[in-house]
Amino acid sequence: MKLSGFYIDDIIKRALEEDINYIDLATDYLLNDDDMSEAAFVSKAEGVLCGIDIAVRTFKFIDDDIECEIKIHDGEQVKKGDVIAVVKGRTKSLLKGERTSLNILQHMSGIATETAKYAKLCEGTKAHVTETRKTLPGLRGLEKYAVVVGGGKNHRFNLSDGAMLKDNHIDAYGSLTNAVKALREKVGHMVKIEVEVRNEDELKEALACKADVIMLDNMTTEQMKKCVEIADGKAVLEASGNVNLERMREIAETGVDIISVGALTHSVKAFDISLRIVKK
Amino acid sequence: MKLSGFYIDDIIKRALEEDINYIDLATDYLLNDDDMSEAAFVSKAEGVLCGIDIAVRTFKFIDDDIECEIKIHDGEQVKKGDVIAVVKGRTKSLLKGERTSLNILQHMSGIATETAKYAKLCEGTKAHVTETRKTLPGLRGLEKYAVVVGGGKNHRFNLSDGAMLKDNHIDAYGSLTNAVKALREKVGHMVKIEVEVRNEDELKEALACKADVIMLDNMTTEQMKKCVEIADGKAVLEASGNVNLERMREIAETGVDIISVGALTHSVKAFDISLRIVKK
Amino acid sequence: MKLSGFYIDDIIKRALEEDINYIDLATDYLLNDDDMSEAAFVSKAEGVLCGIDIAVRTFKFIDDDIECEIKIHDGEQVKKGDVIAVVKGRTKSLLKGERTSLNILQHMSGIATETAKYAKLCEGTKAHVTETRKTLPGLRGLEKYAVVVGGGKNHRFNLSDGAMLKDNHIDAYGSLTNAVKALREKVGHMVKIEVEVRNEDELKEALACKADVIMLDNMTTEQMKKCVEIADGKAVLEASGNVNLERMREIAETGVDIISVGALTHSVKAFDISLRIVKK
Amino acid sequence: MKLSGFYIDDIIKRALEEDINYIDLATDYLLNDDDMSEAAFVSKAEGVLCGIDIAVRTFKFIDDDIECEIKIHDGEQVKKGDVIAVVKGRTKSLLKGERTSLNILQHMSGIATETAKYAKLCEGTKAHVTETRKTLPGLRGLEKYAVVVGGGKNHRFNLSDGAMLKDNHIDAYGSLTNAVKALREKVGHMVKIEVEVRNEDELKEALACKADVIMLDNMTTEQMKKCVEIADGKAVLEASGNVNLERMREIAETGVDIISVGALTHSVKAFDISLRIVKK
Amino acid sequence: MKLSGFYIDDIIKRALEEDINYIDLATDYLLNDDDMSEAAFVSKAEGVLCGIDIAVRTFKFIDDDIECEIKIHDGEQVKKGDVIAVVKGRTKSLLKGERTSLNILQHMSGIATETAKYAKLCEGTKAHVTETRKTLPGLRGLEKYAVVVGGGKNHRFNLSDGAMLKDNHIDAYGSLTNAVKALREKVGHMVKIEVEVRNEDELKEALACKADVIMLDNMTTEQMKKCVEIADGKAVLEASGNVNLERMREIAETGVDIISVGALTHSVKAFDISLRIVKK
Amino acid sequence: MKLSGFYIDDIIKRALEEDINYIDLATDYLLNDDDMSEAAFVSKAEGVLCGIDIAVRTFKFIDDDIECEIKIHDGEQVKKGDVIAVVKGRTKSLLKGERTSLNILQHMSGIATETAKYAKLCEGTKAHVTETRKTLPGLRGLEKYAVVVGGGKNHRFNLSDGAMLKDNHIDAYGSLTNAVKALREKVGHMVKIEVEVRNEDELKEALACKADVIMLDNMTTEQMKKCVEIADGKAVLEASGNVNLERMREIAETGVDIISVGALTHSVKAFDISLRIVKK
Repeated sequence: MKLSGFYIDDIIKRALEEDINYIDLATDYLLNDDDMSEAAFVSKAEGVLCGIDIAVRTFKFIDDDIECEIKIHDGEQVKKGDVIAVVKGRTKSLLKGERTSLNILQHMSGIATETAKYAKLCEGTKAHVTETRKTLPGLRGLEKYAVVVGGGKNHRFNLSDGAMLKDNHIDAYGSLTNAVKALREKVGHMVKIEVEVRNEDELKEALACKADVIMLDNMTTEQMKKCVEIADGKAVLEASGNVNLERMREIAETGVDIISVGALTHSVKAFDISLRIVKK
Repeated sequence: MKLSGFYIDDIIKRALEEDINYIDLATDYLLNDDDMSEAAFVSKAEGVLCGIDIAVRTFKFIDDDIECEIKIHDGEQVKKGDVIAVVKGRTKSLLKGERTSLNILQHMSGIATETAKYAKLCEGTKAHVTETRKTLPGLRGLEKYAVVVGGGKNHRFNLSDGAMLKDNHIDAYGSLTNAVKALREKVGHMVKIEVEVRNEDELKEALACKADVIMLDNMTTEQMKKCVEIADGKAVLEASGNVNLERMREIAETGVDIISVGALTHSVKAFDISLRIVKK
Repeated sequence: MKLSGFYIDDIIKRALEEDINYIDLATDYLLNDDDMSEAAFVSKAEGVLCGIDIAVRTFKFIDDDIECEIKIHDGEQVKKGDVIAVVKGRTKSLLKGERTSLNILQHMSGIATETAKYAKLCEGTKAHVTETRKTLPGLRGLEKYAVVVGGGKNHRFNLSDGAMLKDNHIDAYGSLTNAVKALREKVGHMVKIEVEVRNEDELKEALACKADVIMLDNMTTEQMKKCVEIADGKAVLEASGNVNLERMREIAETGVDIISVGALTHSVKAFDISLRIVKK
Repeated sequence: MKLSGFYIDDIIKRALEEDINYIDLATDYLLNDDDMSEAAFVSKAEGVLCGIDIAVRTFKFIDDDIECEIKIHDGEQVKKGDVIAVVKGRTKSLLKGERTSLNILQHMSGIATETAKYAKLCEGTKAHVTETRKTLPGLRGLEKYAVVVGGGKNHRFNLSDGAMLKDNHIDAYGSLTNAVKALREKVGHMVKIEVEVRNEDELKEALACKADVIMLDNMTTEQMKKCVEIADGKAVLEASGNVNLERMREIAETGVDIISVGALTHSVKAFDISLRIVKK
Repeated sequence: MKLSGFYIDDIIKRALEEDINYIDLATDYLLNDDDMSEAAFVSKAEGVLCGIDIAVRTFKFIDDDIECEIKIHDGEQVKKGDVIAVVKGRTKSLLKGERTSLNILQHMSGIATETAKYAKLCEGTKAHVTETRKTLPGLRGLEKYAVVVGGGKNHRFNLSDGAMLKDNHIDAYGSLTNAVKALREKVGHMVKIEVEVRNEDELKEALACKADVIMLDNMTTEQMKKCVEIADGKAVLEASGNVNLERMREIAETGVDIISVGALTHSVKAFDISLRIVKK
Repeated sequence: MKLSGFYIDDIIKRALEEDINYIDLATDYLLNDDDMSEAAFVSKAEGVLCGIDIAVRTFKFIDDDIECEIKIHDGEQVKKGDVIAVVKGRTKSLLKGERTSLNILQHMSGIATETAKYAKLCEGTKAHVTETRKTLPGLRGLEKYAVVVGGGKNHRFNLSDGAMLKDNHIDAYGSLTNAVKALREKVGHMVKIEVEVRNEDELKEALACKADVIMLDNMTTEQMKKCVEIADGKAVLEASGNVNLERMREIAETGVDIISVGALTHSVKAFDISLRIVKK
């Protein structure tokens, strides 16, 4: 799995424009054009690497001649001190791209690493961790990719590729059954319909109208277990609301299929990586 | 202080494109065009509000007729249950803009709220908290604005509006004194020069060459106190590295002028706000 | 269902840039700024209208003061001579926007009208007509919207919101069963998996591995009937390949659920509509 | 004649964004990065090829390492089974680019092929076929290029590079003579002025005021012949309205110079071409 | 004649992004949001006004509530002290938009004013002044519009709407006659062909092959007079090269039709205008 | 110092789109694809070269195969007849890129050359010449870069990276002292504050409140000398208003630090350079 140039280049370009504007005062005024260096992306923490292809691609927007060698790939485990990749070329260009490159890499690796913790807590159960639509503006693709790299699965990308009937939709339409029925008549055959339920009665209604996926909204662990029993495999069950690392294992053990965690993308902790310049 | 339309509109538009693509299946297929509602942005936590103008502006990209009333403004304190703003119009449009609007508002309020905690710990000292260039791709302006709203001050925006001689630059050039001298001859008269120092000797060298700002890199509290004494007001001192809420107060009390905190923008925790739809 | 401003504005703007560049020689040089007119979009054919909101919105990019009144809405039937909408304001602005506005309206109404013909042939059967990914560059959203307006259903929007295992994918992976199994372990819970089959054996394999949707690739009507029997409702069946108006009814009557027609979007016939200027 | 990178790259990129969003589920999850293939663009119909440079360039936006060999060039005749070009590289990248690449190629070849039919019917006469401004939003350059490749000539590109006084303009201004005179005093020396006439009187007026080009609007073949006689080479005559393949030859034989056909671009039939993947 | 929103908005937005980035430090930090003012665009020189619609539109990108009243329109003569337009609203917004607004207005008025000087020297002759393709990157439309506003005529907009055979083209092709003949067979019927000639022989050749426009390249006044005699109205004659205000009148009096002046757009002198803020 | 690809590519692309639209009629119709040439950028004047990297990069947007050799670099002196760079490849591509390439190069070299004249008049004094924010829309970065290449220094890039209290700001706030004090409490530690003064009293007030930079607004040479004495090195002094080459030396000799010249960027004279095609 790989994000293509057409997708990531605009993100890289925008980030560079913000960080450099037109020149880098210190670097452009102090260093010579033919001053060459080698720099290493070095991990300063332990976790799952993500975004290294994008990080090294950043330098190409500054200097066509930068060469890159990736030593650890997306999805691989890194520990403190590991050399992730090496970039070579004009010292100027390496210094100019450093911050932008790291900002992307640290954000994506932060997501992958956090996702991996949740994924690990699902081991041995049928549950998978997934992100939500609570992503940062302009970064959804990067963030969803990072969730997969970290061992999670992706929820729908946006409002036009999956239909989730939330609280508001159902209230507005009348009843869950009516809403699902009306919707099924209209959406395409590739669209799954998910509904939110808050209790067993709603669950039964959702099962009766054959919702593809049923979200158990803010339920206790006990409630979820009960729901799993009732559903008996007739729909995919998604646990949602107040999920954290402490509670994750017990939720996974309830037998739900999917556990969605908003914090994976809305409250990301950067993963510490540095770029060390080695003068040749 | 206000971010202008020309700055924020691209960010809003990109976020909407990600979140809606071309239609919202559930909303577009289930609701009527003349179904009207009112919705309230309600705080679910306590902190400093930021981004509400942008959040309500989001709906304009979906529907020209949405009306908004802002009740709590950027920089004001909110507590759980507070109604921040009210938006009225087609239910469809309110539902479509909800997620994008909240994603922006929660990210910005998260930054402002966290900044306010650091700022509070500076009270009674001369220190101010500032963010770094460790911002998320495409969101630097929003994030820097949120830092100010939260009571912090902004560091330079990018590499072309302030010159910071980092480790790499100084090493590459020879000595700090040489580097500063060479740079001063070249940069414009509106540019301040900042240098990193790791110990007292470097500090003295930095003071001798009249750096405008001196960054005390990863020093202990004791080292910083010593540096403040030595500098004696001859340069602005910035404390940097390993700053967190626990250590903040003691750093602020060392007498440094600026304390920079990467986590303000690279590891943001979303501030919980919801949009509650009230059917008219 | 409505396409939002954030989606259509770029398309309108690009079209205007192509058609006007910077001025309209004849109009700008010959007409006065305060010369006012009223113009009517008049149908010159019979079919299903689509795109009128976008068509009238076009004028806003030329002149903020143009007023519009839509008389026939998307999805409604029009016949020769019907007045679809009226636009009023500077004659200059009406003339400048005419061609771009019509080009969009005629293309979208062309698609809706053609779709309606296929949809009509499905009446009384369980079949629905759908478009494919064979859309024109940059116009996919407009075209998919027009299919729905014409009474069809949408296939997946793109390669990341539904998984279709085509010939190439299955060959590359080994067997259909292996491919489906591997894929199901990885894709998110909101993704449906569709597979192509060319004969009954492949159909049985597809059913056995519980593909959500099965495409009957280029089959005869007889083959399809047989497949419907075998499938017996256990998967959604999509007929694909060599579908045209002549064959549509007999395919619909085979009992398949979905009939996809590439020509709906790759070979569109413009629907004839004109803008008649009435000098006030 | 060749469309440059700066012109086509935005069109390709937009099309890829629509078709892939961020990943290709089936391809990204099922195929390995080092799985290599070769694929051939194969014609499934007979006609004039157009757009192959753009089609192969599409893959570069997905993967820098794809290699292409073009065997049949734009403007050349292809027949069923002909191998048009070969692309080699990662199987993943070939599959991802397939649809977008073909959508462009089929649309452009469709236009070129249809144009060629009209052009052939002009052989031995002085007439040339030309397209109109009835092009699809965002695709005008591609479409005009395809008309030339098919053997037609281009009409003006837009409203600012040629002045056509249409019905509306003339009515608005008073008389054709007044309008032409006023316009000639204002437009640049590189601009040709075309006027629409509906009968012999108008033609004579147009000739008298030295219009460069005169459009014979919706005339019968007999009327056109008469007009050709009257004009006697003093202006370029363009036949317009209700032109189709059946009527084309008799119009060409009237002696007009230009025959414009809106359907060349507003009602395009895709030319059937497939991309066949050959596993190495 | 008026440039439309779709054309100018990108130019305004780019300029604002350059000039403000995300905030205006002095203005945003010092002024209150409800501080209202009125400001007047005041001419500080004498000449032809151009760009005032664009100048006032600039403020809309900063603040939706700014009101504008234009008192002197494009093409009108202004003298020192004249109030051109008045803008009212938040003082903040007026100060933020000031520089960008003036930069555009001063550039366009500079071109219109200079063009008017050349145009005046053509009075009583048949000559018209025109600009060339020597325009500044991204500003061609604004600049060509300003030439018309100043009383000049526009040359072709770009390489695809008029064919000028320059030195290089003719040399490459063989002879002028061959080149013109080959080109005429290919270009559309709305395209005029212009050729460069350096002496009488070349002029005669150009006339013989019926070039629409003939550029007299860097000729002396005497040579031009001779050429006018030889051409005798059979082609449009354009004088080009080393044209300045001193020489303009004598060139105009030679009888040429068009005199092109690169300096009109490549060496523009800003027209002095200021924005005076009047506190209410 | 070098402008990066991410910065200049949009400018080049926009310029090409303006100049070529989709094809170059003369070149595309007359020349063969395999017709190869070599062309030389030749100076036709004397001055400081600027923009050659960007000029040659222009051709890459038209043709990936063009090769370039730069012989004279940015900042070097050129005289009439000097060969600046050589570009090789398809004749078509060279002709297509010629005008756009030259327009950029001539504008930037014009600025650098004019700046060099002002810089020369500062020799032996402590003064430096700087540009203002009076730049052309969309070209600020190119223009500021050209000022540095010509030997000047850059003023602030925009309103968010340096705070200049202009007339309007101070009036609005009350007093200069109040304004500076209020502003200092808010702006970041990397921001310098500049104030405008019109007489000695204001200067004294500005010095008293420790403005970093003080602009002497439209003063006589005598006044400036007096100000330099009073300031005695306690602030950077910038002379502004009515600066021209005639007055430059005497201003530089007053002892001011910075002399800002709006005309450097708002009234640029193109530097004459041509591209001579040499057929191989």
